[in-house]
Amino acid sequence: MTQATTQTGISAAQQEVEEELVERVVASFDNCENPRLKQIMQSLTTHLHDFIRDVRLTEEEWNKAIDFLTAVGHITDDKRQEFVLLSDTLGASMQTIAVNNQAYEDATEATVFGPFFLDDAPEVALGGDISFGAEGQPAWIEGTVTDTDGQPIAGARIEVWECDEDGLYDVQYDDGRMSARAHLFTDENGTYRFWGLTPVPYPIPHDGPVGKMLEAVGRSPVRAAHLHFMVTAPEKRTLVTHIFVEGDPQLEIGDSVFGVKDSLIKTFAQQPAGTPTPDGRELGEQDWAKTRFDIVLAPAQA
Amino acid sequence: MTQATTQTGISAAQQEVEEELVERVVASFDNCENPRLKQIMQSLTTHLHDFIRDVRLTEEEWNKAIDFLTAVGHITDDKRQEFVLLSDTLGASMQTIAVNNQAYEDATEATVFGPFFLDDAPEVALGGDISFGAEGQPAWIEGTVTDTDGQPIAGARIEVWECDEDGLYDVQYDDGRMSARAHLFTDENGTYRFWGLTPVPYPIPHDGPVGKMLEAVGRSPVRAAHLHFMVTAPEKRTLVTHIFVEGDPQLEIGDSVFGVKDSLIKTFAQQPAGTPTPDGRELGEQDWAKTRFDIVLAPAQA
Ligand SMILES: [Fe+2]
Ligand SMILES: [Fe+2]
Repeated sequence: MTQATTQTGISAAQQEVEEELVERVVASFDNCENPRLKQIMQSLTTHLHDFIRDVRLTEEEWNKAIDFLTAVGHITDDKRQEFVLLSDTLGASMQTIAVNNQAYEDATEATVFGPFFLDDAPEVALGGDISFGAEGQPAWIEGTVTDTDGQPIAGARIEVWECDEDGLYDVQYDDGRMSARAHLFTDENGTYRFWGLTPVPYPIPHDGPVGKMLEAVGRSPVRAAHLHFMVTAPEKRTLVTHIFVEGDPQLEIGDSVFGVKDSLIKTFAQQPAGTPTPDGRELGEQDWAKTRFDIVLAPAQA
Repeated sequence: MTQATTQTGISAAQQEVEEELVERVVASFDNCENPRLKQIMQSLTTHLHDFIRDVRLTEEEWNKAIDFLTAVGHITDDKRQEFVLLSDTLGASMQTIAVNNQAYEDATEATVFGPFFLDDAPEVALGGDISFGAEGQPAWIEGTVTDTDGQPIAGARIEVWECDEDGLYDVQYDDGRMSARAHLFTDENGTYRFWGLTPVPYPIPHDGPVGKMLEAVGRSPVRAAHLHFMVTAPEKRTLVTHIFVEGDPQLEIGDSVFGVKDSLIKTFAQQPAGTPTPDGRELGEQDWAKTRFDIVLAPAQA
């Protein structure tokens, strides 16, 4: 737990009033029989009060905060999760990922899961096309899945999903399509390869209170271009991550949910139309890109 | 702003990852043109991340937090404000009151406003009865309103409101009644007096997610018995407060919203049936109580 905030310009008597209140609220959780819940509530209380005291929150600002949270609650339904957007845009989601996926040797870094995963995406064979009709520049993606000793992992399950060239995931269309998502498995050498789309930046839903917040503080709602991966294998820590696109201007502007890690930025090497493809696929007048993403999984207990 | 949390048992490399993320999120607000909003968002971010890092919040706990906030949002409507209940039960409302109503000489202390005030309560004359049919033990309440130099304030407006003997405010009934609330004015000597009801404890609405939280942590939803006051006078700081009842067992158990201050606990002296009343009112076989609440208003600029 942090130390009591040191206030400047606040009398000792006033500080005592405020600190006594914090102690009283913290003590109200003393009888909680679940020690973890007790720890969480007492820490939450302390930090919440520290915030109010730090900024000397006015009663008008408190009212605005209540109104904001109410609006976040009211726009949230089974298709729209504005509290997750709020957590994402405050970096709280990414911090939770960071706390729970500590670096382990050279294991690939994790990033945010996002709201667009579906657990019934189709399987494609190695070298298959996950786009299923989604529009965008074709991208050949290949790599290996190994453990932290460099041993290949055969049969690792790789889920991949991404938006189309308009920045929309299939689930954001009303026509029930399933596209730009699939799962595949590594071969006996731990290698994988598939055709996807070169990722493009897209805004998180920003027509609600979180979007208004971002606008009020002068922040972009746009996420840096990325392709989602979730990789699972027996006795390995499940890896939820993205790869980002080197040269994407949004990497400089800032990813709206703070998901970028340098190790996850990959070169999508541009190939002019006519360049032979790795698997002989005929793309005619279409340019394409290729990239490599070698994945290292930590042990489950790491 | 508080210092970065010092984590025990977390590697320096991991701490660096977490701190770098906090810095990145804080910096994302650097371009906010409203300096106050910038300060609030940067402080909020820092404290929120400190909380996540302090308790090492798991991804499952993060999910539960999102579900909890969603439930709080969904039960909230124009009659039920669960976010206010949440703020109240975490002591955040009371801390905001504390920050904004600093002690000034011997001015009467403030406490939470609560959700049951109406701005169109009827006027009663001095010595009048504010119950308007609400059931409960009659209580004679009298006192003075003065400034911090001890000068009486004539014509101060006093709003008073309270629950009935069943612990319910008029607005909690469906029949549109208005009772146990009124406003009155001090006379030329700054004195006031009225008949109300001896306050009784009542639970805050606890059939929603905040009630579940209180149950999970072993806390009572009950508020210590109280009578609400709001006192306004020209060039004086508006006083929003309660008086509490000496001997109320809930004062020991703990007020569910942390509103109690020792200076606000008053003796409601019990009077057996037949004891003559201050104004000659005939109460027959009914016992009654009397108390005194001398109110001191701070200057508006204090
Ligand atoms: Fe995404
Ligand atoms: Fe009340």
